[in-house]
Parts: sequence; C-alpha cells; structure tokens
Amino acid sequence: MQATRFSWAVRVYYEDTDAGGVVFYANYLKFMERARTEWLRSLGYVQQELIRDPGILFAVRRCEVDYRMPARLDDLLSVESVIGDVRGASLTFDQDVNRQADGQLLCRGSVRVACLDAQSLRPTRLPDDLLESLGAS
Amino acid sequence: MQATRFSWAVRVYYEDTDAGGVVFYANYLKFMERARTEWLRSLGYVQQELIRDPGILFAVRRCEVDYRMPARLDDLLSVESVIGDVRGASLTFDQDVNRQADGQLLCRGSVRVACLDAQSLRPTRLPDDLLESLGAS
Amino acid sequence: MQATRFSWAVRVYYEDTDAGGVVFYANYLKFMERARTEWLRSLGYVQQELIRDPGILFAVRRCEVDYRMPARLDDLLSVESVIGDVRGASLTFDQDVNRQADGQLLCRGSVRVACLDAQSLRPTRLPDDLLESLGAS
Amino acid sequence: MQATRFSWAVRVYYEDTDAGGVVFYANYLKFMERARTEWLRSLGYVQQELIRDPGILFAVRRCEVDYRMPARLDDLLSVESVIGDVRGASLTFDQDVNRQADGQLLCRGSVRVACLDAQSLRPTRLPDDLLESLGAS
Repeated sequence: MQATRFSWAVRVYYEDTDAGGVVFYANYLKFMERARTEWLRSLGYVQQELIRDPGILFAVRRCEVDYRMPARLDDLLSVESVIGDVRGASLTFDQDVNRQADGQLLCRGSVRVACLDAQSLRPTRLPDDLLESLGAS
Repeated sequence: MQATRFSWAVRVYYEDTDAGGVVFYANYLKFMERARTEWLRSLGYVQQELIRDPGILFAVRRCEVDYRMPARLDDLLSVESVIGDVRGASLTFDQDVNRQADGQLLCRGSVRVACLDAQSLRPTRLPDDLLESLGAS
Repeated sequence: MQATRFSWAVRVYYEDTDAGGVVFYANYLKFMERARTEWLRSLGYVQQELIRDPGILFAVRRCEVDYRMPARLDDLLSVESVIGDVRGASLTFDQDVNRQADGQLLCRGSVRVACLDAQSLRPTRLPDDLLESLGAS
Repeated sequence: MQATRFSWAVRVYYEDTDAGGVVFYANYLKFMERARTEWLRSLGYVQQELIRDPGILFAVRRCEVDYRMPARLDDLLSVESVIGDVRGASLTFDQDVNRQADGQLLCRGSVRVACLDAQSLRPTRLPDDLLESLGAS
C-alpha cells in the first residue's frame, strides 16, 4: 500500500468562471479529472500507456457532486482525493475541492470509474498493482 | 399546470469531445444546463430578468449523472427534462440525454437547483407561477 | 456554385461566459467551428465521412480574431461565414459574429483550414466538388 | 525594467483535447490567458485588484494564432511570453507554445490586450509601473 490520499492544486482562471462570477458547475469535474490523472501519474501510471500495456482504459460510470460554496476567479484550490468503494472492475474516487486560503470545503464529489478492456471495451478487473499503489487493496 | 416535460436538441461538436473519441464527461452538464435554460425561456422566464424581478437566481446544489453509453462527434442528442423532487426553495430536474438516431439513452442526470434571493443569496421560496408553469405544483 | 455565404445561429449560455460577464474570448472560436461544420453539413459533407471517403480531414492552420464588442449571456448571435482566400490545399473562412437583436458586429474572424490526407496527414488538394459547393471555385 | 519574458508550464488533460486526438484549437487561447495572468501575478499584479486600484481592467482586442503542430494528451507544454508592440492604451503579448519534451514549437500566438477604465470601459493609459515591470517601457 502506498498512497492513500492525494492532493492536487488548481488555480481558477477566467476560462473556469461564468457570468455569475463563480466557477461554472461542470468545471469542477475538470478539476477532479486532473487530480485523478495526476494521482495515477505520481504512482507511475500514464493512462495512454495503460491502453497499450496491460490494455486497459478508464471510463467514468457515475458522478455525484455536492456544491457547498462557490470558487471564484484567482482562487487557489486543492483537490483532495481518496479511494472509496472498490469493486472488481471499478473504483470510486471521493474528491473534495477546498479553497486553500482558508481550507473551506467548496464542493464534494464522488466519481466511479470503470476499468475496461481497451480492445473489447468490456469491464475488466483492475490490476492488483494499481489498486495496491492507490492504497485500495 | 403547463409543461410537464421539455425536450431540447443538442448537436455534438469537436469542442464537446475528447481524445477518447467521445463527449467529455463534464460536458453533459453543459447540455443539461442549456436544456434547463431553454425550458424556462420557453415558459417566458429569462434568468437575467428574474434577478431583477422578482429578485431571484438559481444555483446548482447537487448533481448526479449516470453514464450509460458515450455520445460521439456529430451525434444529434435530445435532452429530455422533467421535474422531480420539489421543496420550498429548491427543485430537481431529472434529465435524460438520448441519441436521436435510435433513441438510445446515453446518460441520466439529476440536478437539484436552489432558488436564492438575488440580494442576500439566501434560499428563498420558488415563485408559485414558475412552479405552476413547470408543472411542478 | 451553390452557397456563397452561410448563417448559423448561436445562443450564449452560462458555459460560454466568464466572470467578466461576457463571452470568454476563446469561445468565439467554438462558435465559428460550429458554423463551419454546419455549413459543410448543409452541403452534404460530414467530416467523419470525409475521413473515410475521399480520405481527407481538415486542420486549422491559422486564425485571426478581432474583438469589437462583447457578447453577453442569453444573447442570440449569428455567425455569418464566407469563403475568403482559396489555395490548392487550404481555404480561409471569413466569419463575422453578429448580435441578432440589433445586427451589431461583435467579432470578426478569419480561419485558414488546411485539407490533409487522412492517412499521411500531408496537405492535399481540396476536392473540386467541395469547393464548388462552397461557391469557392 | 524587470521581466522581459515569462515561461509558464501547462499540462494537457482530457478536457483540452478533442476527438481528433489533439488539443482543440480554441484551447491554446486558454493556455495563453493563463500565462498572461501568471506573468502579471508574478509581478504582483492581480487583475481583480487592479479593477479596484487603479481602476483598470484588460480586454483582448485581437488575437492571431499560427498552428504548427498539435499538442496531445499528457503533453507538458511551455508557454513563452514576451511583450511585442506597446501603445498608449494597449500592448501585445507574443506567446509561443512549445512541447517541453523536445522544445518543438507547436503554436505561436499574438494577443493584443487593451487597458480599459473599469468604470467607463474606455481605453486608458497602461500604468507606467506595470509597463516597467513587464520590461515594456
């Protein structure tokens, strides 16, 4: 077991905000995707390489997001990720987006990701070493 | 009671897709937001005008999305919306994204929207006429 | 020679705007891409089919955009496209974005698109029938 | 005179790519905006504070982008910015996007930014200290 949580910083730019003056609600899912990708990268897993060896890819099956307070332009955020539910062919990332300045929780997401065979696109078991690296085994 | 469901067509462009060849998972939330906005507009409610009179605005409090099958470039989609749970100061839009060519359900979302006082940003009751127009009263 | 200009309507949603209260400057390029795609579609050319037959794809080589006035949330825009410069393996779309309410020109773009062989990704001649359909021959 | 060039790293995520397998052409403008914002921030200028004191904001007036080679998923890019043309109330950022792995130039942009009075939204002179900080005086 290696990492059991992962923190990734995100700065809010104009591209992320909307005319309400806050981050557009769909864009938190971008921040969460960056955090998942960087967690895997930090453990040595690059998704494009996993497609070739061992021939798997990830697809989001479900997401839930609770929006508590809005993020604003220039905010520095922190996406804190842990592994939630683990099944044979899928796992859930529980991801909090906090404002760094004061630690305020802004939104809380839960994203279930399926592991697919890159050829057949059918669900396949998550590699043991990946689960172990994520602290999920 | 007027409308009880609303259908809005969305075409998939390059901007919506990602390197996986399918619509990026966050972008379905854009499609759902367009559908909610157009449903309100079709009933005579323009959000920027509601801010001035009667002084309310909407904020997404929670969303859940189940991804069944991916949408692809050039697909013509249909976002089918109905009102789910209605509370005093919030209501839920249940929104299905279907592929028009064959009616296949691609993803299913549920988006809870709070009604806020535009000045205080505190939750406030949804206007009766709006609820009635949405077929939610 | 068929079409010599093409008009495509675009509604401004929250996703298009930024915290400045206006459409984010990069997003006009999305609107222009939609207009080019729909012009081709209206003439019977679907880009994904062109990749298979006759084996070509399009890639943007250069764009220029002059921003005159900002578009705002809920604005209904019109993207007016004509063909500018035509060379053997590329052509330029001159694209104006107007506000429908008063016809005000908001921004003016010029986008040069290269025709590539879908296998080699090398520049290749634009099909004569396509040029003719665009009124560019 | 302080900084005369500024380098900002950008990682390519799924959100940035399209079904062509490369970064969507409009998204390079996001990368360039981030780089301009971070250059100003590194010099002590936060745009939201400039609106209050000395009461100015920036608006993009024109951009030109030459696309040489595409960026791909997971690429680590570097946006290299210098100040080009300086006028009384506007200045141009010349911005190259390079691939860090091999230094390959991927695209080259030129973005003219106007300085506006935050109240009247009319062009106003760029502050001398800002120009000096950017090495543009």
